Amino acid sequence: MSKTVPVGVSARHIHLTEEHIEALFGPGYQLTPLKDLSQPGQYAANETVTVIGPRGQFDKVRILGPARPASQLEISRTDAFSIGLKPPVRESGNIEGTPGVTIKGPYGEVQLEEGVIIAARHIHFHTSDAAKWGIKDKQLLKVRVNGERGLVFENVIARVSDSFALDMHIDTDEANAAGLNNGDTAEIVD
Amino acid sequence: MSKTVPVGVSARHIHLTEEHIEALFGPGYQLTPLKDLSQPGQYAANETVTVIGPRGQFDKVRILGPARPASQLEISRTDAFSIGLKPPVRESGNIEGTPGVTIKGPYGEVQLEEGVIIAARHIHFHTSDAAKWGIKDKQLLKVRVNGERGLVFENVIARVSDSFALDMHIDTDEANAAGLNNGDTAEIVD
Repeated sequence: MSKTVPVGVSARHIHLTEEHIEALFGPGYQLTPLKDLSQPGQYAANETVTVIGPRGQFDKVRILGPARPASQLEISRTDAFSIGLKPPVRESGNIEGTPGVTIKGPYGEVQLEEGVIIAARHIHFHTSDAAKWGIKDKQLLKVRVNGERGLVFENVIARVSDSFALDMHIDTDEANAAGLNNGDTAEIVD
Repeated sequence: MSKTVPVGVSARHIHLTEEHIEALFGPGYQLTPLKDLSQPGQYAANETVTVIGPRGQFDKVRILGPARPASQLEISRTDAFSIGLKPPVRESGNIEGTPGVTIKGPYGEVQLEEGVIIAARHIHFHTSDAAKWGIKDKQLLKVRVNGERGLVFENVIARVSDSFALDMHIDTDEANAAGLNNGDTAEIVD
């Protein structure tokens, strides 16, 4: 049985706590949804921020909503070199000991003490997809991409939940190395 | 027999004809070597140029010498998006039908009509390495990279010559997707 998954390419983006949203956009401010993402309830907001590292900055970094319990900036390794940060490759939410960064909004600034990561590649599975294919939460998968830049990604983390929709998330370095665009597909081979 | 190859990460760079070197730096100008590269006779020059695309530019793009019969800009797919170009993935020297770009030096400007590529990943083999491992010129190889971003690159082109030294060349997107740094190693698996 072929295990084909759609690919979602994550450009640099940020998740913010309610407290940080207010510090950056003003008291009582609420994010406004621009576009739904593949995972139910998640959206790209209209709002963006400036991210300032030791050697450079990125303007218009998209905020993904809704608000989260901890703020987290996800950038590619290319991005990291360009603004002078050395974040580790981590799963979302696992930010202990990661670098901080300065965030600037139209209302104010926030100094994140930690929270900058390069997101570990992963696949979201709805529980039913995972059961059908015999895949367990946290399992490390191999995923093949065809084409002239074809490759096999190893160590792709399976994340299984009733609240997930089937989608493989990679960053722009990984997408570009494999010649992938949003909506392309890949195949779980092991 | 394990087939281990050193990895060289190519940042964006440009090769120029003698005519273009003179147009950019002045009549009779000669490049001056900054640092030898892995391939015999090739060097990074002290000289850099500005590269101007439809949506952005890169300053201080390194020139690699010596002069070549055709000028060629090699950038990553990340770079290409950032300055608004859509170059194909090509082997070095195969530039027919590729996009052009504006090059600016301290003396003058050159409008390249074609020559922008994303370099196809490849391995330079000295003839003796290739013979030892049973690898033929133009053969497509699979190359495994270990580590937390481990992957297997497919379609890695073998290039065999008496004037080459063993080295795998990938661009910054590929290096970052695989968590590789200059001087790391990879293994030919097929």
